[in-house]
Amino acid sequence: MGVIHRSLDMAKQIVSVVLKPGDTAVDATVGNGRDTVFLARLVGERGRVWAFDIQQQALAAAAKLLEKEGLASRVTLIHRGHEDLARYVDDNVGAVMFNLGYLPGGDRSLVTRPDTTLLALEAALLKLRPGGVVTVVIYRGHSGGKEEEESLLGFCSKLNQASYTVMHYRMLNQINDPPSLLAIEKLIQEV
Amino acid sequence: MGVIHRSLDMAKQIVSVVLKPGDTAVDATVGNGRDTVFLARLVGERGRVWAFDIQQQALAAAAKLLEKEGLASRVTLIHRGHEDLARYVDDNVGAVMFNLGYLPGGDRSLVTRPDTTLLALEAALLKLRPGGVVTVVIYRGHSGGKEEEESLLGFCSKLNQASYTVMHYRMLNQINDPPSLLAIEKLIQEV
Repeated sequence: MGVIHRSLDMAKQIVSVVLKPGDTAVDATVGNGRDTVFLARLVGERGRVWAFDIQQQALAAAAKLLEKEGLASRVTLIHRGHEDLARYVDDNVGAVMFNLGYLPGGDRSLVTRPDTTLLALEAALLKLRPGGVVTVVIYRGHSGGKEEEESLLGFCSKLNQASYTVMHYRMLNQINDPPSLLAIEKLIQEV
Repeated sequence: MGVIHRSLDMAKQIVSVVLKPGDTAVDATVGNGRDTVFLARLVGERGRVWAFDIQQQALAAAAKLLEKEGLASRVTLIHRGHEDLARYVDDNVGAVMFNLGYLPGGDRSLVTRPDTTLLALEAALLKLRPGGVVTVVIYRGHSGGKEEEESLLGFCSKLNQASYTVMHYRMLNQINDPPSLLAIEKLIQEV
């Protein structure tokens, strides 16, 4: 790996600086479960990870992986879309990770959608503690991917700069439309 | 400072990972001399920094600062535009830093221009060793700033992805048009 981090690694880099043992974190898109494991390691034995996916296949794979890594007790797997996260997750969340698009190796017609993604992002921001971060890895290659990116960038451009810092990271010279990364840090609690 | 680095800090962060003692580095826009000092510290006693500016005022301030920090012997200050860098700098450069726009506290009508900036960037990329980086902090607030950014992004979008990785970092929700950052890493020597 070079010195310039790609989106996935940059997201992990940012989250690993923020999360402390005992923290609460959210994996908004379990997918293959790799981010769930990453978060479960960072929050430690007394921390908690809430992990959402609408696909049973994803949750089953993640459960197996977490069991194998001895991390299952730190994670609550929830078979719901991430737009419901406000109903499950407590306040003072340290980090929320989104990985948009479809499940790798799964049904490519099942993709995240702008309307539910925006609802989930809004809920995630409210749940963050000051100093907490949301990372969103955005794929543009699939049908509807570019529109999803546009709607996320539009939403984030309007966030109050006194409350949030938003950075967008994108590679400029790649042929295969690699994912871009949105990273949002909460500065103060909005009233 | 939050966990999400702003452009100036992100540029320094990347360069500090790349540069090793004994390396050669270039400050393509001396300005107030702060990046020159930063680079001179990183390259160490046996390293060298080539530092360019067309304004005598900038070079004089940088010379004073370098003297004060005991770093003057590591730096060659050159009173030329950065588009001439190929004539002065040897190959195998570890890092080149650009800070575009005008000199803070100086004459605001003296700004970097897309044509000379692109010539300089092209020369800088040729001088880099594999693993080396160019960082470009781009201000959009002054007259011609947006056009300069557009021409840089256009140029970088066409760089061969086998030879270079290009990342663009920008803040989305700031009112005062903060600078964005281009970071380019050389992967292999082009033949």
